[in-house]
Amino acid sequence: MAPSTPRLVIPIDLTKKPWEQNFPLHNRWHPQLPHVAEVKAGELFRVEMTDWTAGAIKDDDSAVDVKSIDLSTVHYLSGPIRVVDEDGTPAKPGDLLVVEILNLGPLPGDEWGYTATFDRENGGGFLTDHFPCATKAIWYFEGIYAYSPHIPGVRFPGLTHPGIIGTAPSLELLNIWNERERELEENGLQTLKLCEVLHSRPLANLPTTRGCVLGKIEKGTTEWEKIAREAARTIPGRENGGNCDIKNLSRGSKIYLPVFVDGANFSTGDMHFSQGDGEVSFCGAIEMSGFLELKCDIIRGGMKEYLTPMGPTPLHVNPIFEIGPVEPRFSEWLVFEGISVDESGKQHYLDASVAYKRAVLNAIDYLSKFGYSKEQVYLLLSCCPCEGRISGIVDSPNACATLAIPTAIFDQDIRPKNKKVPVGPRLVRKPDVLKCTYDGNLPITKNPSTST
Amino acid sequence: MAPSTPRLVIPIDLTKKPWEQNFPLHNRWHPQLPHVAEVKAGELFRVEMTDWTAGAIKDDDSAVDVKSIDLSTVHYLSGPIRVVDEDGTPAKPGDLLVVEILNLGPLPGDEWGYTATFDRENGGGFLTDHFPCATKAIWYFEGIYAYSPHIPGVRFPGLTHPGIIGTAPSLELLNIWNERERELEENGLQTLKLCEVLHSRPLANLPTTRGCVLGKIEKGTTEWEKIAREAARTIPGRENGGNCDIKNLSRGSKIYLPVFVDGANFSTGDMHFSQGDGEVSFCGAIEMSGFLELKCDIIRGGMKEYLTPMGPTPLHVNPIFEIGPVEPRFSEWLVFEGISVDESGKQHYLDASVAYKRAVLNAIDYLSKFGYSKEQVYLLLSCCPCEGRISGIVDSPNACATLAIPTAIFDQDIRPKNKKVPVGPRLVRKPDVLKCTYDGNLPITKNPSTST
Amino acid sequence: MAPSTPRLVIPIDLTKKPWEQNFPLHNRWHPQLPHVAEVKAGELFRVEMTDWTAGAIKDDDSAVDVKSIDLSTVHYLSGPIRVVDEDGTPAKPGDLLVVEILNLGPLPGDEWGYTATFDRENGGGFLTDHFPCATKAIWYFEGIYAYSPHIPGVRFPGLTHPGIIGTAPSLELLNIWNERERELEENGLQTLKLCEVLHSRPLANLPTTRGCVLGKIEKGTTEWEKIAREAARTIPGRENGGNCDIKNLSRGSKIYLPVFVDGANFSTGDMHFSQGDGEVSFCGAIEMSGFLELKCDIIRGGMKEYLTPMGPTPLHVNPIFEIGPVEPRFSEWLVFEGISVDESGKQHYLDASVAYKRAVLNAIDYLSKFGYSKEQVYLLLSCCPCEGRISGIVDSPNACATLAIPTAIFDQDIRPKNKKVPVGPRLVRKPDVLKCTYDGNLPITKNPSTST
Amino acid sequence: MAPSTPRLVIPIDLTKKPWEQNFPLHNRWHPQLPHVAEVKAGELFRVEMTDWTAGAIKDDDSAVDVKSIDLSTVHYLSGPIRVVDEDGTPAKPGDLLVVEILNLGPLPGDEWGYTATFDRENGGGFLTDHFPCATKAIWYFEGIYAYSPHIPGVRFPGLTHPGIIGTAPSLELLNIWNERERELEENGLQTLKLCEVLHSRPLANLPTTRGCVLGKIEKGTTEWEKIAREAARTIPGRENGGNCDIKNLSRGSKIYLPVFVDGANFSTGDMHFSQGDGEVSFCGAIEMSGFLELKCDIIRGGMKEYLTPMGPTPLHVNPIFEIGPVEPRFSEWLVFEGISVDESGKQHYLDASVAYKRAVLNAIDYLSKFGYSKEQVYLLLSCCPCEGRISGIVDSPNACATLAIPTAIFDQDIRPKNKKVPVGPRLVRKPDVLKCTYDGNLPITKNPSTST
Repeated sequence: MAPSTPRLVIPIDLTKKPWEQNFPLHNRWHPQLPHVAEVKAGELFRVEMTDWTAGAIKDDDSAVDVKSIDLSTVHYLSGPIRVVDEDGTPAKPGDLLVVEILNLGPLPGDEWGYTATFDRENGGGFLTDHFPCATKAIWYFEGIYAYSPHIPGVRFPGLTHPGIIGTAPSLELLNIWNERERELEENGLQTLKLCEVLHSRPLANLPTTRGCVLGKIEKGTTEWEKIAREAARTIPGRENGGNCDIKNLSRGSKIYLPVFVDGANFSTGDMHFSQGDGEVSFCGAIEMSGFLELKCDIIRGGMKEYLTPMGPTPLHVNPIFEIGPVEPRFSEWLVFEGISVDESGKQHYLDASVAYKRAVLNAIDYLSKFGYSKEQVYLLLSCCPCEGRISGIVDSPNACATLAIPTAIFDQDIRPKNKKVPVGPRLVRKPDVLKCTYDGNLPITKNPSTST
Repeated sequence: MAPSTPRLVIPIDLTKKPWEQNFPLHNRWHPQLPHVAEVKAGELFRVEMTDWTAGAIKDDDSAVDVKSIDLSTVHYLSGPIRVVDEDGTPAKPGDLLVVEILNLGPLPGDEWGYTATFDRENGGGFLTDHFPCATKAIWYFEGIYAYSPHIPGVRFPGLTHPGIIGTAPSLELLNIWNERERELEENGLQTLKLCEVLHSRPLANLPTTRGCVLGKIEKGTTEWEKIAREAARTIPGRENGGNCDIKNLSRGSKIYLPVFVDGANFSTGDMHFSQGDGEVSFCGAIEMSGFLELKCDIIRGGMKEYLTPMGPTPLHVNPIFEIGPVEPRFSEWLVFEGISVDESGKQHYLDASVAYKRAVLNAIDYLSKFGYSKEQVYLLLSCCPCEGRISGIVDSPNACATLAIPTAIFDQDIRPKNKKVPVGPRLVRKPDVLKCTYDGNLPITKNPSTST
Repeated sequence: MAPSTPRLVIPIDLTKKPWEQNFPLHNRWHPQLPHVAEVKAGELFRVEMTDWTAGAIKDDDSAVDVKSIDLSTVHYLSGPIRVVDEDGTPAKPGDLLVVEILNLGPLPGDEWGYTATFDRENGGGFLTDHFPCATKAIWYFEGIYAYSPHIPGVRFPGLTHPGIIGTAPSLELLNIWNERERELEENGLQTLKLCEVLHSRPLANLPTTRGCVLGKIEKGTTEWEKIAREAARTIPGRENGGNCDIKNLSRGSKIYLPVFVDGANFSTGDMHFSQGDGEVSFCGAIEMSGFLELKCDIIRGGMKEYLTPMGPTPLHVNPIFEIGPVEPRFSEWLVFEGISVDESGKQHYLDASVAYKRAVLNAIDYLSKFGYSKEQVYLLLSCCPCEGRISGIVDSPNACATLAIPTAIFDQDIRPKNKKVPVGPRLVRKPDVLKCTYDGNLPITKNPSTST
Repeated sequence: MAPSTPRLVIPIDLTKKPWEQNFPLHNRWHPQLPHVAEVKAGELFRVEMTDWTAGAIKDDDSAVDVKSIDLSTVHYLSGPIRVVDEDGTPAKPGDLLVVEILNLGPLPGDEWGYTATFDRENGGGFLTDHFPCATKAIWYFEGIYAYSPHIPGVRFPGLTHPGIIGTAPSLELLNIWNERERELEENGLQTLKLCEVLHSRPLANLPTTRGCVLGKIEKGTTEWEKIAREAARTIPGRENGGNCDIKNLSRGSKIYLPVFVDGANFSTGDMHFSQGDGEVSFCGAIEMSGFLELKCDIIRGGMKEYLTPMGPTPLHVNPIFEIGPVEPRFSEWLVFEGISVDESGKQHYLDASVAYKRAVLNAIDYLSKFGYSKEQVYLLLSCCPCEGRISGIVDSPNACATLAIPTAIFDQDIRPKNKKVPVGPRLVRKPDVLKCTYDGNLPITKNPSTST
């Protein structure tokens, strides 16, 4: 018999650049990216990964690195990994690739992470019109727990997960992506009311050769130029999975991914020590490097069997997930609600995004009464294990969204009480998040009814 | 010492009409509705209620009652209930009213409920463009469990809750509601892209004297005419709470409601035996009559202390909630994902409503492979304890929404398997939901990539 | 279609004596007790019950009723209920009777309960050598919650369950019971070391005509005399189920009971609003009257199929249980440990009872540092939702038992802290349990190492 | 700022013997064992450990190693570790040592474990009179999951924990242990009825120089001889913690240990990937090597503040525990019950050990109907996350103990059904546990009522 130590198929050397790794990373989706590793169905293997910026954000005393980040370079992914069955036959288009996450965690020796908001002119975030400055908080890990010197008074166990896992798109699917996102980028501001409420810009991130890293394909070659011009950015989740940011994809989870190319060629990255639903601050989980221990299976013909396309082509599908059995257990939750009326008082129609924005703003204002700056709470709600729900989506004209926060993560009782909000020495917390100035001139959304 | 049997402050006689009740019901929000009962802070009391239609939907063999319902008459609420402190001083504007739900359930002798979809011309629902017909499923209760002859093979414990609980608005707040909703109704179709995706009409339900029932105020009087023309409809949740449809507001929950008028004058109704996040089919929970056992408290000045308005006036607030400790326990969940690309393949910008629509459609298609009609699944996902999450709201341009379904509610294993979806006698289920024809001529959204 | 209101098969009138009820109660197990009701498999029905003493313990200001209780009269049970299948054929010996608990609760208008310790000369309890006095605490219910004026500072949701549910024994089984318990009563003190540690007396409660109530069988008749002399007492759980006191048998649970006589003839009683594992104070749950909503099924030949006898006869079996899905949710637990060394320092051999006694004593001493009397904690640990575990049973010579207490039931933080145990006004609680003197002269177990 | 990688204070080289390690192991408790490492309060550190036998049990095809094991050599522990506060002052007798478990797991490259029963003549176990043969099952780990080629059809997530963690005893405490255990060993068989039911022999494991390993103290020296003759064996849990085998002491748990010697000098070992309550087969968890990431704190004077001695001396205390927030989540449990009547039909008095033995026997018989051998189930119940409860301990003469098994660990539905227990190809499992013959001549407990 043989013990089942997972085979390390993609190691990471944190002292090297993404393109210097033995199994070079990539930051685009494209069918012609060659795989860097191959695994068999049923085999236990280990994949290591950098944080999504591959080290661009540092454990230091400033948020300047966040403010000045070049977002054309993210996310750095490990892979593609080709999957074959026990007979060596690769996964085929139309199959379902089953990926089971058996274990995961930070890379040994690198047990820290960060949560940040981008500058409004360079990335933005869900509340960028309220919080236009780049900010950063560092988190340190003590086993299952994280704590931050920049957000004192909270400590919580991580529900660690990879933010990104996805298969390579076919050329047909890639073209669909590029076309629909270009259409949005070009015409969206004129036609989409939500653009007035959610201020992140650009609307979409189109292919660009700038910052492009393509794994084994050498920069500057003709092949590189062609692929770099076509390859999809990794920011949004799409039909292949990708940047789903589903915070519950932790130990024991299973992911059923559609296969679009031979071998499936899946990639993964963007490890999160913990994330709140919505990942509202955008650089919003506790971002870290890490490892995954995985096992794959192939369901032959599984796309037809289990996935029903919904859209113009058979490629318009989405992955399915099973949540694992090991999650932190919380029993008390404080819940904030938002409806689809925006900050100016304008009524929107069943818009869950507007409602959720309102719920998050409500929670930030509330928690800032307990000794925190609003920036601290914004980062906290982005990365702590809070749950964002679509509670009502039919009661015209108001969508109702809720944000539930586990009260046990705080070292004080944050529930409303029939006496004043406690004030005192323990609440005068000097530390705050690291913060840059905002030098742009876009208007800031001011709450008309508060003077602060 | 005295035992603590709750005082019945609002009884319901199910054989009587809403306006015939000893404590007559109302179906509008207005500051001048007189309270029908008064309770003291700390007192344990019981409130009974009809189902939201006060008996218009029957336990029979047809969905005609659903198709032809007059929606101007809903929701019938019990109240208003005036709340005073232990000295008899009423709650005041600016206070927070704390309502603790200590127990609840169906009315004895009336242990059944229904889930339905409205006709597309009369109410609609989240997926009305796909499912334009009125349908209905009856549910029977066996203690904590519900089962339906129309959706065989599922049985689940209820997370029972009142869909509506809210305080009376002030006149100022009422005017804000009427103004912003009128603006939407009048101009929304031109400016809101989401209207093309979410087809429920009208966009908002403006005040109307039709169907109006105003509690103690006699129909036909001048006062009635005035209030009926001004009073807000009960469909959407708003600043006063109202129709929040938060499925976790069950036993042991606390609700912190802003107070806008003397005595708070809160009302409640729309009991749900169980509801899924989003309540997607609109008449979508397991709707029933029921009772609440409640206890109130007043936090003096609590609005200023705990709620921060976000909008043009200090009235732009939302309630806060605490979830109770007794919820059904599920360990395995199957999760469906949607991104903000609509059925035509069009890219939307960070739109959680579009993403959630896609997630629900994906779940319906999937489950329909296990022996169910799509209409059965649509109703099931609307009322079973499934969780709808905003997983990612920053990865432009795609919002990522997820729908998690507890697998234990089914009598078969619904997870993907490395063999075919099981077929066989146990899956050939003759029963289906009750269904009417759709006689309108609005275009149905067809999935372009399926022939069925 | 017909709604599923449960049929009330055994109503209780709390103003009447057990033998005056329309469906008279009984307090003994015997095969010849006639059934008082009949139910069909699959039928939803309701059974009401008194508290186990049928009202002997009052909601008053004294524990005298506890001290002077006549224990020959308990427990009063509702039943027997005969179970037939859908064709009218009764359950047969060798079948398994499946009883599903669909709902339960206190009787409306009687929402209170009590927890007590008996006098050491009259009933005793797990720690009677430490706490020989009769004590009593009254609990009031606020929906799912219980609180006590005698144990301030705690409030918890109930995991309500029937303490007793069992089928009628056959004559053969009854004889086995009577014989083995008589042997224990006659010879136990000489041979059982545990008797020196667990001081409850008598060792067993043998049949007695005193206090005997036999349902439909009229007192004083020859039949009554015969049965009363033979019928087993209801104190211990046995092969037929009976007084199992399994605290998790709440809503949604299933009980698989062996059938020993035609019709199964099951009885139930001894409702508990809440109980801790072990029910250490003996009258130890929150005892109350109540109702059950049940559904039965018959597994023909199920005893042979599913139960393996372990003992001299095929009757030496035990029931099986499935726990329901709706339990209060706690996330933080403080755990006390005990090993099988008794208070005198004597080493016992792998004795889980001694170890658990030590764990409970440790917990009582600990919690008494937080402003409680030891009697308050003893009653609290008997009735709150604490978990008693056999953690290690093989590490000779010490069994290791643990008692886990959910911290959320207290209104203060009871965990050890790196500063002193808090003292102050909020901890100086005047109220204590109701208490009688102990007038006996048995030696009290004193902790040799404390002066208090 | 500095990342928080834990400092490795005790490394293990699995190719070396316990006494060859850089920080040599020990297998006895004694105050004069020198510490091998020192940590500061608040510091994050890592401790590695061998499995409890330090490699004596192999991943091979035979149970001979189990049958012939020399139990005088176990358990091999890592430590002692001296704890000082931030000023360098060591923990003092009377303090409480707080140990927080922040992370743990198998040693990388050694991801396997074993569960075994000892031969009745050499170790025994809870059911050794029923199962006298040495048996062994190997488990392999796939991240959080374990599976065994010898017990097919089950797979479960681990609730990993150290079986042993304890502080060094003072000489006074050591003498108490040795005295009371010698008394038991010498006189127990004559006076303890439980000995007739629990057949493990010897009753206690007294100090012996045989197999003794004492860390830094060199074998053969005078000091070694003296300490080896006095030092307590590690088998039972005692006042210092030690072999508590509390299965929930996993990630995030806190342990409050009494301090008896300067520096506390705590040791730890006996890692379990998973264990059932009771660890019934004795070598009963999934035994493995592993690592702990820990943080210590010192509560000065905490023994007096928080622990109340119960016994002849102030040393008669027990540790306190807090359970961590990350445990596998199960929703369905099947529960087996036992009462304190033994296999011969003899009635015992409130004996939880006898009742639990019966509950375990019932569960074994039941599960063996689903295609398993009884030996397979015995090992499984010893190591899977099942819960053993003391349900009733006051209902004379029967203690009621329960064993709850999570049904999700099986690949088949093990609940009783209204049709026969399924049989068929999937249940004809050829693999069984590895098994030796029993060559002794002690009588085997036969179930009188079965022929098998």
